[in-house]
Amino acid sequence: MKAMEEKILREGQILPGEILKVGSFLNQQIDTEFLREMAEEIATLFKDCGATKILTVEASGIAIATAAGLAMNIPVLFAKKHKTSNVDGEILSAPVHSYTHGTDYNIVVSKSYLSPGDKVLMVDDFLASGNAFMGLLGLINGAGATCVGACAAIEKRFQGGGDMLRKMGIRLESLAIISAFEGNSVVFDSI
Amino acid sequence: MKAMEEKILREGQILPGEILKVGSFLNQQIDTEFLREMAEEIATLFKDCGATKILTVEASGIAIATAAGLAMNIPVLFAKKHKTSNVDGEILSAPVHSYTHGTDYNIVVSKSYLSPGDKVLMVDDFLASGNAFMGLLGLINGAGATCVGACAAIEKRFQGGGDMLRKMGIRLESLAIISAFEGNSVVFDSI
Repeated sequence: MKAMEEKILREGQILPGEILKVGSFLNQQIDTEFLREMAEEIATLFKDCGATKILTVEASGIAIATAAGLAMNIPVLFAKKHKTSNVDGEILSAPVHSYTHGTDYNIVVSKSYLSPGDKVLMVDDFLASGNAFMGLLGLINGAGATCVGACAAIEKRFQGGGDMLRKMGIRLESLAIISAFEGNSVVFDSI
Repeated sequence: MKAMEEKILREGQILPGEILKVGSFLNQQIDTEFLREMAEEIATLFKDCGATKILTVEASGIAIATAAGLAMNIPVLFAKKHKTSNVDGEILSAPVHSYTHGTDYNIVVSKSYLSPGDKVLMVDDFLASGNAFMGLLGLINGAGATCVGACAAIEKRFQGGGDMLRKMGIRLESLAIISAFEGNSVVFDSI
């Protein structure tokens, strides 16, 4: 998505630890006009995938997943990072390692919201080493549901997660694919 | 909002600790069709408030804030519960006590996303004792910005936060106002 690459070049900042800061439009402040464009692109890319539900993980995946769900007219489900007092009953759980925060945690979702009949599209803001998507896959598999695809707003391809998912046969569409950071410059890839 | 009251009566569950579980449509799974209705209601209620930005707090406020931002065509900003490695530079911080989780934490936002000229509409999924909104007000005041209103999808009025905000002169619009839980029944209020 050319507009995403241009937005990253205009507003993104490279921070230490190969972190791309896009808080001005994607994961702290949300540029809703641009979010709508992203969501329409996702709806177009996945229009024939038969998804019955979008799955993401809190917190920064929620905005883009919600916008995509609005554009595709399907419900959105977000996994929580801890079992909280308003997730009761039977839960599905999967472990995740956070690259950004350097911590391990479990993601959980109420079993009642993910059924064997669900065809699930995973959506997140970033795809780096793929840990969040692997956790979401764990939840989908735990429910006996089917994963019909994955979509990241921004894939940092040099961190390997995207290619791992592709090798697993998962249909992955990233709105922008970054092949490298060179000094203060972002280098895009197209596959 | 009559549709919200009906939705709560159909899908809400009262859990111990006066917690209303609405995970089936609002804060774990998101019913995007209904979310769009909520967002349009918020846009109508606040159409003349002059808001330049919506402010919420992660995680469960993000979906409704994003939908409201899309409906009002203004950016959405979400405060984070911890300073993370992708919130750099100068930050604004305010303390919050979580009723649901029984913990205290700080919410933070990059100073660069909230300016003295901003007119801020606070949006969240729940309003109980008002701690989250008070934290958001702390961020708005810290930035020298102006609060033009507050909107909760569901206000538990018997927990006092809504009336506290009203006494402070803040324009509060709650899509549903619960005056009490009586056994397994939800009793609504209209003010």
